[in-house]
Amino acid sequence: MNVKQILRIIGLILAIEVVLMSPGLVISFFSSESLAVAGFLKAMGIMTVTAALLVLITRNAKKGRFYAREGLVTTGLTWIILSLFGALPFYFSGAIPHYVDAVFETASGFTTTGSSILTNVEAMPYGLLFWRSFTHWTGGMGVLVFLMAIVSLGGKNEGFTLHILRAESPGPAVGKMVPRMKDTAKILYLIYIGLTVANFICLLIAGMPVFDAACTALGTAGTGGFGVKNDSLAGYNPAIQNVTTVFMFLFSVNFSVYYLILMKKIKEAFLDEEFRWFWFLVFLSIAVISCNVRFMYNTLEETIRHVAFSVGTVMSTSGFATTDFDQWPSFSKAIMLFLMVGGACAGSTGGGMKQVRFLLLFKSLRRNLHKSLHPSEVNSIQVNKRPIDEGIIDNTNAYLIAYVIIIIVSVLIISLDGFSFETNFSAIIATFNNIGPGFDAVGPTCNFAAYSDLSKIVMILCMLAGRLEIYPILVLFSGSTWKKAR
Amino acid sequence: MNVKQILRIIGLILAIEVVLMSPGLVISFFSSESLAVAGFLKAMGIMTVTAALLVLITRNAKKGRFYAREGLVTTGLTWIILSLFGALPFYFSGAIPHYVDAVFETASGFTTTGSSILTNVEAMPYGLLFWRSFTHWTGGMGVLVFLMAIVSLGGKNEGFTLHILRAESPGPAVGKMVPRMKDTAKILYLIYIGLTVANFICLLIAGMPVFDAACTALGTAGTGGFGVKNDSLAGYNPAIQNVTTVFMFLFSVNFSVYYLILMKKIKEAFLDEEFRWFWFLVFLSIAVISCNVRFMYNTLEETIRHVAFSVGTVMSTSGFATTDFDQWPSFSKAIMLFLMVGGACAGSTGGGMKQVRFLLLFKSLRRNLHKSLHPSEVNSIQVNKRPIDEGIIDNTNAYLIAYVIIIIVSVLIISLDGFSFETNFSAIIATFNNIGPGFDAVGPTCNFAAYSDLSKIVMILCMLAGRLEIYPILVLFSGSTWKKAR
Repeated sequence: MNVKQILRIIGLILAIEVVLMSPGLVISFFSSESLAVAGFLKAMGIMTVTAALLVLITRNAKKGRFYAREGLVTTGLTWIILSLFGALPFYFSGAIPHYVDAVFETASGFTTTGSSILTNVEAMPYGLLFWRSFTHWTGGMGVLVFLMAIVSLGGKNEGFTLHILRAESPGPAVGKMVPRMKDTAKILYLIYIGLTVANFICLLIAGMPVFDAACTALGTAGTGGFGVKNDSLAGYNPAIQNVTTVFMFLFSVNFSVYYLILMKKIKEAFLDEEFRWFWFLVFLSIAVISCNVRFMYNTLEETIRHVAFSVGTVMSTSGFATTDFDQWPSFSKAIMLFLMVGGACAGSTGGGMKQVRFLLLFKSLRRNLHKSLHPSEVNSIQVNKRPIDEGIIDNTNAYLIAYVIIIIVSVLIISLDGFSFETNFSAIIATFNNIGPGFDAVGPTCNFAAYSDLSKIVMILCMLAGRLEIYPILVLFSGSTWKKAR
Repeated sequence: MNVKQILRIIGLILAIEVVLMSPGLVISFFSSESLAVAGFLKAMGIMTVTAALLVLITRNAKKGRFYAREGLVTTGLTWIILSLFGALPFYFSGAIPHYVDAVFETASGFTTTGSSILTNVEAMPYGLLFWRSFTHWTGGMGVLVFLMAIVSLGGKNEGFTLHILRAESPGPAVGKMVPRMKDTAKILYLIYIGLTVANFICLLIAGMPVFDAACTALGTAGTGGFGVKNDSLAGYNPAIQNVTTVFMFLFSVNFSVYYLILMKKIKEAFLDEEFRWFWFLVFLSIAVISCNVRFMYNTLEETIRHVAFSVGTVMSTSGFATTDFDQWPSFSKAIMLFLMVGGACAGSTGGGMKQVRFLLLFKSLRRNLHKSLHPSEVNSIQVNKRPIDEGIIDNTNAYLIAYVIIIIVSVLIISLDGFSFETNFSAIIATFNNIGPGFDAVGPTCNFAAYSDLSKIVMILCMLAGRLEIYPILVLFSGSTWKKAR
């Protein structure tokens, strides 16, 4: 294990985090929020010192040898440390007096979950609200991807960049858009910034105040879901809600589709199987749920607006709300729960299992069924008419296993707090899939404050495991990670 | 597809079902239950004619060519037909006036689920109660296995018998105990009969009336769970409850362990990994739940008795009840729900996913984790220190996928009836895993009568798919099954 190089990256990431905190500090300064300013300064001071120390003691780190193991460990540790330090401004300013709560809120931010322990968002200082929404944006595309995009870490760092990008990017396989990984990271971030700015401008045009529009655009881009109002987006006008609906879906699409469109390969983009399956599911769910809940709203426009928004919020795993879907009939609630599990497309900022995994699992089931009927035939699984590497199929299967096991264990632990099964089950689904709100006591109008510290820590780990697609967190708990390489 | 041979087997199975109904008829006759006698006679008449016709028109069926596909289709169809015809005595006698309900009850019997739509069991005629419990016993070991044990279907029928046995027996792989499959089927049935008789005698010694003891022993052997009292086993004395607990566990163990013990290979039997994991889980669950629910019962003896019974009932997937575990704290309820999913050992009469599948999934996850850390190493998965064929690993993965997809789709459909998520989710878990009672509105003290016909049909298919481990039912809905072989 190349410990020094890992520590070096963590140092660099901490330095980046200090920079990322500065807009929040500036906003707090100009809003005369003295406690928040003090909190930011104290946190940024501690982080600067830590970062400087880490970079100093690792300045002679050997470059070069960097394997899959190091990639996973770096990613897992980085995200835990980002959350632990990112929580400091909330804690030092006294805005969130309990440290575990502050870490929960920050991890929820970086992982773009959007689950909150705050009961009164509107009482928070503006600077901290901005930092909270900004964590969504940073976490959405990934802070390590950002690091890859701006610096070169020594000579032979292609493998290194690939391993990190693989560990941090959502989906079963990372497509190299361009030959050099660093350029891929840059392109991803440019598309991301472009879409975020477009979202911000549309929100302004729709009549949203500047601060609200900035926070909402950052939260939508990361598919996070932290709002700046206690009623999330319910109080804004329909135009603002519809803009958000559209952008939630746009940020749920594999970014390589946008790259193809930019390269004028429009046809190729629209033939992508996951892309088509995603939109099919979107329109089908909106249609079916709209019929089911039509009686609860006054007009058809209102029904479709709320349903489209809610489907967008669970499929993109954002977690904004305009309506309390916990009140919907069981059938619609069940659809919502399963949409939550499926989530967005791979290679987007959205969470969940990713739709392409569902496609792969479904195709793998079909193949196995065929094989049980005709044992002698050999078939490969194809996506977009290209055969898929068996390693990816194995990995997708393993992902499902890990997914099921983690849900079982987590639900068991948080059941100790005595809430209903629906609450516990949907709380774990909501955090693990980085959605935000669940059902019942953790529904769209409620929050996670009532859980015990133990449960919150379990959910913090679930959020991180969900965002990083399990392995980078799981390997930290595996004995074989820390053994000397043979 | 060798349609004629399949129809021939179905004819033979129907003839066997007529014979299996006769004890019920005799009991009804001596209990002067005229409606039940009439119902039995009408049903048996129709079935005899159908069976005779099927056997007649297929008397020149070609023997020999019989592939995996035919094995799966035969098994799937046989079980559906067994349920459709087995329901006739309930329907014709007027004891269950609605035919879908009668099929639900019969499928629940044959699949050893034990879910019931009856609100007052004690009002049922004795003959029908006996038939109801007898379906458990028949379905537990499998009626096709029984056919294999008693008849030879032409010369080259080893492959045929193997395919059937594979499709009907629970677990990822059928171990041939002895070289000839027919002898394996015989040995299985002899062990089964021996244990059932032992259970019956123990219940008599514990003070149970003869009819109750017979029905309870049949229900325990099949790990079914139909009782003859409205309060299941709650009203009987502790000795009877404890005897049932012990036998529920005994019938959850892989029968090949008993064969090893009979062959005096005691050490080999006790070294079986699934066997050890099963008992570890049993004692751990009993200990943890006992601590959690201690405050609900008067004495420690009472606590452990009820907990051991309830753990036995969900792990064996029997579904008897002495206490209403729906009232337990959430933590214990969550444990119970996951024990339901796991179920019993492969090669037993119990249901669920089977513990060996969990072992395999867990080992497969560990291997994949190791592989993601050390991509170049190659490792095989071992159970009982023997490497497992990769085909079985693939199959177990596919099983999990099918399992998750079926649960999602089924919960969605039955959600249309508007019950709570906990009710719907646990109803599907309870029927698909062949357990019987779920939680909330389908808890141990309630029943499934309130669901719509559509939901009942979905649950009938779930019970059959669960008992036959998915594929034999799934292939019936697959287009590629009915295409001409290439």
